[in-house]
Amino acid sequence: MFEKYLSERIKRTPSSFIREILKVTQKPEIISFAGGLPNPISFPQEELKISMERIANNFGAKIYQYSTTIGLESLREYIVQRYNKNFGMNLSIENVIITTGSQQAQDLIGKVFVNEGDCVMVEKPSYLGLLQAFTMYGANFIQTQLNDDGLDIEELKKTVALKKPKVAYLIPNFQNPTGLTYSEQNRKDVFEIIKDEDMILIQDDPYGELRFSDEKRLPYIGQGSEKNIYLGSFSKIVTPGMRLGYAIASKEIIRELETAKQASDLHSSIFSQYLIADYLENNDLDKHIEKIKKLYKSQAETMVQAMKDYFPTDVKFTIPKGGMFTWVDLGEGKSSLKLFDKAIAKQVAFVPGNPFYVNVEDTTTLRLNYTNADSETIKEGIKRLADAMKEA
Amino acid sequence: MFEKYLSERIKRTPSSFIREILKVTQKPEIISFAGGLPNPISFPQEELKISMERIANNFGAKIYQYSTTIGLESLREYIVQRYNKNFGMNLSIENVIITTGSQQAQDLIGKVFVNEGDCVMVEKPSYLGLLQAFTMYGANFIQTQLNDDGLDIEELKKTVALKKPKVAYLIPNFQNPTGLTYSEQNRKDVFEIIKDEDMILIQDDPYGELRFSDEKRLPYIGQGSEKNIYLGSFSKIVTPGMRLGYAIASKEIIRELETAKQASDLHSSIFSQYLIADYLENNDLDKHIEKIKKLYKSQAETMVQAMKDYFPTDVKFTIPKGGMFTWVDLGEGKSSLKLFDKAIAKQVAFVPGNPFYVNVEDTTTLRLNYTNADSETIKEGIKRLADAMKEA
Repeated sequence: MFEKYLSERIKRTPSSFIREILKVTQKPEIISFAGGLPNPISFPQEELKISMERIANNFGAKIYQYSTTIGLESLREYIVQRYNKNFGMNLSIENVIITTGSQQAQDLIGKVFVNEGDCVMVEKPSYLGLLQAFTMYGANFIQTQLNDDGLDIEELKKTVALKKPKVAYLIPNFQNPTGLTYSEQNRKDVFEIIKDEDMILIQDDPYGELRFSDEKRLPYIGQGSEKNIYLGSFSKIVTPGMRLGYAIASKEIIRELETAKQASDLHSSIFSQYLIADYLENNDLDKHIEKIKKLYKSQAETMVQAMKDYFPTDVKFTIPKGGMFTWVDLGEGKSSLKLFDKAIAKQVAFVPGNPFYVNVEDTTTLRLNYTNADSETIKEGIKRLADAMKEA
Repeated sequence: MFEKYLSERIKRTPSSFIREILKVTQKPEIISFAGGLPNPISFPQEELKISMERIANNFGAKIYQYSTTIGLESLREYIVQRYNKNFGMNLSIENVIITTGSQQAQDLIGKVFVNEGDCVMVEKPSYLGLLQAFTMYGANFIQTQLNDDGLDIEELKKTVALKKPKVAYLIPNFQNPTGLTYSEQNRKDVFEIIKDEDMILIQDDPYGELRFSDEKRLPYIGQGSEKNIYLGSFSKIVTPGMRLGYAIASKEIIRELETAKQASDLHSSIFSQYLIADYLENNDLDKHIEKIKKLYKSQAETMVQAMKDYFPTDVKFTIPKGGMFTWVDLGEGKSSLKLFDKAIAKQVAFVPGNPFYVNVEDTTTLRLNYTNADSETIKEGIKRLADAMKEA
């Protein structure tokens, strides 16, 4: 009786599969590689406490009052400086809008650019939060295979020629869910194919700072193009609980996102913005990030070694060079959904691959997160998972 | 060249008129009655500082980590207790979702219920943030006249019979922009007309707690109906900068809003939620609200007296019994847009009435806010405005 009131867009958006999984995996006896939580080591708790006191003393009522939709100037200035330095960009604060987490930036971009039926290209597999957000706006998704070195170039050529996507959404560094990174050559090849197309290119980069291999940091695809939107976030390097992300783009695009954001939540918590800005101005973020990377590197290595030690030899997995995830392929004919049930029985959890694909019921793939467990727990969990694989 | 990428929904959403006005009125020499800012007296700054320290000590990493979409249990529990006590409701926490300000609740409701072309009934005039949010989802608005005692019953009957609105959005207490409140009889009459209709009724109540007249607090329209959604906010009674509002509805509606919210921003700042929950648990909110009401009462009285003293006698205005606004009608043939230019020249600002109407270019009405100026400033501003009226 209630359903008759619902909009078409909510009817086609399934309640999140991952949310359902996380309910199962919250039991304390279960070792969970299912979540995507940063390790609490990445929250500079003592420094944030000092910043709280300082902003309360320095800014008084301003940290509690309504504020501008586009976001706090000092925080946008910090972002501009960092991108100009790290990527040789030439941004000014009019190129930056603060969002309520990177998820909101995705929602706003959907609002601003996606008409019902518009073709949107995403990686295969892709981040499910984006799939959810854009499904609301009626996106017609097409997925292009993600390989070890980036997008599948032949498939990309065909997709661009045949489907003419209006928007593309890519995660070039330590992708969620696969952990894969685009090579320098692949970035060039991708840009070569899309540069003359009528296409907005979104590059989501929540994990780019978390590169724990020795290789150098790479520029974005077609860096500097007016049609590019870069998404960033403080969630993985300072705190996700404050819900602060940002979009970087041309002034014209930022203005449209601002109009959309005003209708969505007026502005993001100004307290959070003052707090993070103060933390960034008074601490060495790079030094803090080193600490996170050191931990994640050792956790990733532990998980990779355990997978080598325990998994059946025909099971494949990615070797992460940064970020928070590894991606496992069970091999032809296998089912990650069936494995999930066996694994839960053995008290270990993961995310089956299907929610990262469009219209796929079951897959041979699954996502493992390694950032939120100590090394003994990682080994024990992988052992249990290997046992479940052998049974399945 | 850029426009070709834009969605239909953003093309039909004008960038906010009020935002443009606020830019003009931010000059320090201008007395502005244009904003809708609560007075800083409503921010319990010292108590919030104590709460910050306490939650950092009590909850550690939890105040910085990802959290649930529906919101912090203890905060939802506080809301439930307060509504059950104040309104004799029978809510449980499954009836409450925390949102990033009340504005987000409006956006989520639009997402969940409004299909392109759906008829949405709002007051005439109505809150422009709702008009903006629902315009994005293609709402076809119909406005029903708001009178001194509530909705125009005859007009409502016709609208319901002819247009069969799917959603109605009302602000029964100290409405924005008019400051008007629905009488007890009007609430009953409204419900009588809509109760058997297929209609979701949203009642937005950001100002309900700020009743500074002696009259008793009234129940919602059709309180308890399964199709009702109540919106509330901490913005006007604790702090707007934290962006915390909430929606109260049936469990089924809350579940849909939760799915929509997950795609919109995952969750609202969990730090803000812990902070406000701790403040509410350790302080007497009613006592704090008394302080705000005392100030707003005297500010409202000062403005009303000044309008009586200085305005031309044919100019009408509402006498607020709570909330933050009064509404002025210049009388037939007058233009609030023309007055705006004269007023700015005399260094006083207000919001002309037109953005609160659907498809209206100019009006005889305007909104004045009295909560953010001291009594001398209010008198001087009204005097300037009266001079501008005489010139116009």
